[in-house]
Amino acid sequence: MTELLDDVIAQTTDAIRAHELDRAHVFHSWSAQQLIDPMVVTRAEGAYLWDGQENKFLDFTSQLVFTNLGHQHPRIVRAIQDQAAKLCTIAPAFANDARSEAARLIASHTPGDLDHVFFTNGGADANEHAVRMARLHTGRHKVLSTYRSYHGGTQLAVNMTGDPRRWPSDHGSTGTVHFFGPFLYRSPFHATTEEDECQRALEHLEQVIAFEGPQTIAALILESIPGTAGIMIPPPGYLKGVRELCDRHGIVLIADEVMAGFGRTGTWFAIEHGDVVPDLLTFAKGVNSGYVPLGGVAISDAIYSTFAERAYPGGLTYSGHPLACAAAVATIRVMEEDGVVEHSARLGEEVYGPALRDLADKHEWIGDVRGIGSFWAIELVSDRQTREPLAPYGGSSPQMNAILAAAKGRGLLPFANFNRIHVVPPINIAESDARIGLSMLDDALADASFAQV
Amino acid sequence: MTELLDDVIAQTTDAIRAHELDRAHVFHSWSAQQLIDPMVVTRAEGAYLWDGQENKFLDFTSQLVFTNLGHQHPRIVRAIQDQAAKLCTIAPAFANDARSEAARLIASHTPGDLDHVFFTNGGADANEHAVRMARLHTGRHKVLSTYRSYHGGTQLAVNMTGDPRRWPSDHGSTGTVHFFGPFLYRSPFHATTEEDECQRALEHLEQVIAFEGPQTIAALILESIPGTAGIMIPPPGYLKGVRELCDRHGIVLIADEVMAGFGRTGTWFAIEHGDVVPDLLTFAKGVNSGYVPLGGVAISDAIYSTFAERAYPGGLTYSGHPLACAAAVATIRVMEEDGVVEHSARLGEEVYGPALRDLADKHEWIGDVRGIGSFWAIELVSDRQTREPLAPYGGSSPQMNAILAAAKGRGLLPFANFNRIHVVPPINIAESDARIGLSMLDDALADASFAQV
Repeated sequence: MTELLDDVIAQTTDAIRAHELDRAHVFHSWSAQQLIDPMVVTRAEGAYLWDGQENKFLDFTSQLVFTNLGHQHPRIVRAIQDQAAKLCTIAPAFANDARSEAARLIASHTPGDLDHVFFTNGGADANEHAVRMARLHTGRHKVLSTYRSYHGGTQLAVNMTGDPRRWPSDHGSTGTVHFFGPFLYRSPFHATTEEDECQRALEHLEQVIAFEGPQTIAALILESIPGTAGIMIPPPGYLKGVRELCDRHGIVLIADEVMAGFGRTGTWFAIEHGDVVPDLLTFAKGVNSGYVPLGGVAISDAIYSTFAERAYPGGLTYSGHPLACAAAVATIRVMEEDGVVEHSARLGEEVYGPALRDLADKHEWIGDVRGIGSFWAIELVSDRQTREPLAPYGGSSPQMNAILAAAKGRGLLPFANFNRIHVVPPINIAESDARIGLSMLDDALADASFAQV
Repeated sequence: MTELLDDVIAQTTDAIRAHELDRAHVFHSWSAQQLIDPMVVTRAEGAYLWDGQENKFLDFTSQLVFTNLGHQHPRIVRAIQDQAAKLCTIAPAFANDARSEAARLIASHTPGDLDHVFFTNGGADANEHAVRMARLHTGRHKVLSTYRSYHGGTQLAVNMTGDPRRWPSDHGSTGTVHFFGPFLYRSPFHATTEEDECQRALEHLEQVIAFEGPQTIAALILESIPGTAGIMIPPPGYLKGVRELCDRHGIVLIADEVMAGFGRTGTWFAIEHGDVVPDLLTFAKGVNSGYVPLGGVAISDAIYSTFAERAYPGGLTYSGHPLACAAAVATIRVMEEDGVVEHSARLGEEVYGPALRDLADKHEWIGDVRGIGSFWAIELVSDRQTREPLAPYGGSSPQMNAILAAAKGRGLLPFANFNRIHVVPPINIAESDARIGLSMLDDALADASFAQV
């Protein structure tokens, strides 16, 4: 009993110290440093984490949608420990078994002939290098990307991004041009059916390509299913239409699968839903559940050939980092052996989809429910008829804050973006935990709604 | 005996498989993929590594000058294993003990008031984010950097770079302007003394600032001691002069310490030799010997204040990665407890400096010897009078290739760039191993020279 108390005191003391030092020395991403008060995380396991003050949270965010296999998966942890004992790191110029096996396993799951893997540290540099490959492969400069997208935080990647995080770094000089993707619930094309949305979105893209000049466009990059921007599933035929436009004009098609890849949508890669093979496919996050920083670009034979006898002018010190690659090998093997991708697909069909549509029947605030696999969004509105968002684009609102606070109060860690809540738990979460979280979300919506009355 | 043989066979089989898969699936940095034949590394320890074919090499490169504490340091390995068992990863928004302690330790060693740490995955994104901070802090856009420099592989970072790796990605649109730094051996200013080189380099910089327009320049970035570009120690007073020019014109001074930081030059940071405090200091590599990918920006109070109540518009999924931070904590503690920085300084004064100058007395090819701590370059020339490089800028030559092959033949892994060989072993290398490597280099120069006759 005394020992238990000592443990609690020790953990609390450690948490207080971590918080103090954080405030004194840690500069946080995307934040006003003095206006945040970071929660300390002292422990995490599977879909749960603890704050060092005896509070336990069910993680419906997978952090930033990257701990696809949850926290502290024992087989990935052991693989990291074993690789650490063997060889933590080696320069990119060498060959190494962990690096080779990770590349082989990734290539065995990527669609088509994307059989060559350039490893990076994360998603942003993966997208930057994919664009460089496309520019040198085509001899062209411009990159098309969609509004309502996120492609990373470095200069080129954030300029390809189509959300407000781009604006402070947007100097109009990176060769990026934005177009509108399909999004029936808030159709930029005034469509009312999926078929019309698809056809009009493709017509729009065709016009953008025509007016920008096809021969100036190196690449078109898109998230196979846009993630943080709202989990908008492309209508049937859209990705095939994009592929066809790229083929017609010699444009490299880059599928950004940083968030949607590795089982998140119930297939190994989200682009499989569109039955399309891109020329380059970028990944990070789910490749090793983020246990060690890793990203990369899977490369088609044609683009590989461009750099067969001509040097690819790009690289990085930690390309193909053995520790990160060993974590990827373990992650992919767990996914294969435990049928994690199939589990993710089944949760979407049998649990998230039906349960979230039930919530929409109960809660007036829910204007739209959309998703697939373990990748879902509910769009919150103040008025179902006008579809007025419950928080403005790029901002927040008292109602959204109330819902998020209620969720945390119920023990649920929610993923929020503007007027949306995304349901993106670990893809290997137990069905019972998934149902507990959905019930907490139900209660939180009721709590916040009641407080408004 | 049979067991030993079995081990050898198993290791060789593994190495062959690693090589095959590498050739089939791994896309390598800065390379023509079909013109390389990567050496397999199966094992490494301290300053040595093995190729799986019974060949052992003394690593005089620290890989890409990042394994500052050598391979498989037991205390760093154990720290990684312990942190893996505890908590591999957590999103950047949270506070966490490993992240907090790493930031505290780094801040305790950075000069001046650089007490706030933004963590990245490596050096390139550290430099990209430092520039973004400077741009938003000043409201200006342009960045000055030096020719003969390297700042990373992503789009903005490679455009700041002053070496041929920039050229294929140089679209003249990133707001970067290059100037000449001091380099007495190949003086861009026709100087013959250190004092003149310093004064003329500062006059040149002053003119560049005047003609570019001081009010257009957000930042000046330089490697405190340029690394891959040639290890050119700035003359006394140069960095103070740069600091003074930046102060006069409200320009943010960014010290890139990705390669030169964390003991490499015999001080914690290379800028200490110039007795200057920059506004931002970027690091990676030595911070945790690259055992887990990690980089970052140390931030002054003034720039921190800019983002105290206004969001910093930048971030990344793995910022402050706990596993990487735990490796940094262990690395810094080893450096503190074992006096590694002092050891690095002493090796420079007592071993590398004297021995390399002795080599210059023996080998006609050595035109210049320069360095400090564990950071040395020999410049190879075909003619000491004209200083004609033994390989052209941006290229190679039969003579350079002969020297490098001879070194590998002797069991030494050399770091080469154009006409230079850099002597950059782990900074905690035993003096006896350092002397063995220098002797191998001596023999290699003789071998190659003899082959020329």
